[in-house]
Amino acid sequence: MNDKIPYKIYLSEDEMPKNWYNVRADMKEKPAPLLNPATKEPMTREELSQVFCEELVNQELDNDTRYIEIPKEIRDFYNMYRPSPLVRAYFLEKELQTPAKIYYKFEGNNTSGSHKLNSAIAQAYYAKKQGLKGVTTETGAGQWGTALSMATGYFGLDCKVFMVKCSYEQKPFRREVMRTYGAEVIPSPSMETNIGRQINKELPNSTGSLGCAISEAVEAAVTNEGYRYVLGSVLNQVLLHQSIIGQETKIALDKYGIKPDMIIGCAGGGSNLGGLIAPFMGEKLRGENDYEIIAVEPASCPSLTRGKYVYDFCDTGCICPLAKMYTLGSKFMPSANHAGGLRYHGMSTILSELYDKGLIKAVSVEQTKVFEAAKLFARVEGILPAPESSHAIRTTIDEALKCKENNEEKTIVFGLTGTGYFDLVAYQKFNDGEMSDYIPTDEDIQKTLAMCPKV
Amino acid sequence: MNDKIPYKIYLSEDEMPKNWYNVRADMKEKPAPLLNPATKEPMTREELSQVFCEELVNQELDNDTRYIEIPKEIRDFYNMYRPSPLVRAYFLEKELQTPAKIYYKFEGNNTSGSHKLNSAIAQAYYAKKQGLKGVTTETGAGQWGTALSMATGYFGLDCKVFMVKCSYEQKPFRREVMRTYGAEVIPSPSMETNIGRQINKELPNSTGSLGCAISEAVEAAVTNEGYRYVLGSVLNQVLLHQSIIGQETKIALDKYGIKPDMIIGCAGGGSNLGGLIAPFMGEKLRGENDYEIIAVEPASCPSLTRGKYVYDFCDTGCICPLAKMYTLGSKFMPSANHAGGLRYHGMSTILSELYDKGLIKAVSVEQTKVFEAAKLFARVEGILPAPESSHAIRTTIDEALKCKENNEEKTIVFGLTGTGYFDLVAYQKFNDGEMSDYIPTDEDIQKTLAMCPKV
Repeated sequence: MNDKIPYKIYLSEDEMPKNWYNVRADMKEKPAPLLNPATKEPMTREELSQVFCEELVNQELDNDTRYIEIPKEIRDFYNMYRPSPLVRAYFLEKELQTPAKIYYKFEGNNTSGSHKLNSAIAQAYYAKKQGLKGVTTETGAGQWGTALSMATGYFGLDCKVFMVKCSYEQKPFRREVMRTYGAEVIPSPSMETNIGRQINKELPNSTGSLGCAISEAVEAAVTNEGYRYVLGSVLNQVLLHQSIIGQETKIALDKYGIKPDMIIGCAGGGSNLGGLIAPFMGEKLRGENDYEIIAVEPASCPSLTRGKYVYDFCDTGCICPLAKMYTLGSKFMPSANHAGGLRYHGMSTILSELYDKGLIKAVSVEQTKVFEAAKLFARVEGILPAPESSHAIRTTIDEALKCKENNEEKTIVFGLTGTGYFDLVAYQKFNDGEMSDYIPTDEDIQKTLAMCPKV
Repeated sequence: MNDKIPYKIYLSEDEMPKNWYNVRADMKEKPAPLLNPATKEPMTREELSQVFCEELVNQELDNDTRYIEIPKEIRDFYNMYRPSPLVRAYFLEKELQTPAKIYYKFEGNNTSGSHKLNSAIAQAYYAKKQGLKGVTTETGAGQWGTALSMATGYFGLDCKVFMVKCSYEQKPFRREVMRTYGAEVIPSPSMETNIGRQINKELPNSTGSLGCAISEAVEAAVTNEGYRYVLGSVLNQVLLHQSIIGQETKIALDKYGIKPDMIIGCAGGGSNLGGLIAPFMGEKLRGENDYEIIAVEPASCPSLTRGKYVYDFCDTGCICPLAKMYTLGSKFMPSANHAGGLRYHGMSTILSELYDKGLIKAVSVEQTKVFEAAKLFARVEGILPAPESSHAIRTTIDEALKCKENNEEKTIVFGLTGTGYFDLVAYQKFNDGEMSDYIPTDEDIQKTLAMCPKV
């Protein structure tokens, strides 16, 4: 306990966590297993190993080991850009004139610009350790592809990134960072896979979709000797790696005797929120402490707040395993005016299970309100936030204003997952007053939900 | 002294410098004064105050006060993004297999993406304190304009940025960050000033130049009530503010008992190098310690290595005061294929004087070699460097390889001034093998040098 709390709390290297924390070990009801879409039976280790690296399959299936050691090679890489700072948002508090105490864990201080690197480097390490030649993946907004290309560049692995064609064309800078790190970036649908060729034949002007890019990446992994497929969110293994965020946060808070009342994070597939809350949720599950946890999702892609908790395909192409999750249906596509990431139709099975048990709350926010918050935050706190992260900022501001109304001195921690340098087209739209909101109708959602498989 | 040196040395808030260090106080020969271009007499306080804020004029003219207190409001803002880390480049050392110990001071961890913010916030603060409505400036590559817009946004000042028209069009993202922070960004030549209107009339298709943008910004400051002009490099006041970089570096090194043999920085107008070396140069000037200091400039704009030490105009438009500096002539323009900043025709009068006395060395490097170094650094150290900063990386690598050849265990510190997120067009050119080098001929330089004023 220490009276003097600095603006930014950095852990020393000695204080850095040496293990990831596996929240599943403390869950009484474990997240539902992935199912083989053909047999509807749980995916076996062997089946998963055709697609994923062996060690990552172990992590995916391990519901019991509470702490999993972070290999030294990964800790060395973490040392490059971690610990990330836990920042007291004094300037934001002052601007809002709120009695709330606001902290944010800032994950944008690395070239990939987001928290995605925490899992990318782990996945690349295990691929290297297995003696693989390379990995394949898809990317939409580009954060994950950038992080993965940094990680594979570091370990000298090949990296094939299938990038949704319209992003490939509209985000040449993202593409170029990946190329600078040595990745091969392929606009999807491509002519490199059967699925890509088929789509190009059927829809010659297709600008691609995340679902199609996933299908291509999986095909490329399975059909190329020495390759495996890697994914940047949703999976248990990814949440495990991202627990580094929450553990650092908890150690930093404990060091100064701070107990948060509320933890807020944006949620797309769930990698950031799952990581940020992990050790806090552990205490909550073990009955040691209580925290209010809020998942913030876009009103245009509201899987938790308006989806259903059922088995669904993880990809639009319906070639991946089935996962039990809050979903809008695998064919759900957020409106074209939706900016940034957080556009996945489902939610990590771990978070879905926790939400279903009432251990997490969820809210949805509209994007013009999100960019309003982003711009305010950028001005007073000096960091240009990613649109994804700005969802958490929006809700944090709303909660801080409630504290002001009720004169409550709550301590709020939120996850600032990344920076918005590559999202300036969206900022421009907002600055020019050309950004709008779109909320899917109940009919929209019912239509795609009706297409979920029967399990 | 401490045996265990972490990867990244962060100072605690208590350890942060509370003063800027004014190297002029320790210079026996002071830098030459600015001259009024009409009278060739030293610019008076009154003359300077028509263009610059009063307190900044005081700092500009103060050759004697060794330490100038950093006002609390500025230190509060520094706390948002400072201390910046001093990083041991273990991964680069390993890649090069050099016995040299390499450290870099990383100034890119803020939304403006560079060290420019250190002076921008100071200048905005003094403008605010003087009760001004706003400030004007020019920007080329955009780093300075971005930093200034963050600073003025924070203090609620107006900010007019005259942005070289071709940059305005080719770097819409830079422009958009500035607008997000509330700046008015005006493509130059504009229709808002006499000079702009005149150029637009004479050269209707002009895409602008830094010189023209400076002239417009100065005119806008002088003709608008409540405005002053601010500048991001070259001036004594800017080097003073940037001394925070060197002071933090020195405190961090001293803490672990590390004495650098060599300090390397890129040099355009000199703001970064002047700041990085300040306290080390102080020791050198006072005879307390010796350091080898290397300024790295682009081969396409080699003011120190191939320019002359004479009085010259600070701007192409010849409306600003004369400064005695190493210059290529105010009409010198680096070749169109030159990427990034470091394109100023002259060099800070402080650095010019130190260089003339042999206290600093200088080298020039070609840009394809610079991007080669940048790409290597990005891969092994995980940070995508700005082209400007990569000049220092290039020379650091060259020096580290010399150490390897000679089996010398030198300690090298270099300045990593910023990130390259907004320079991906240049990276793309390099990745595609389309980048070339251009070195001006002696005739080129003689031609523009011949146009320097007679003093």
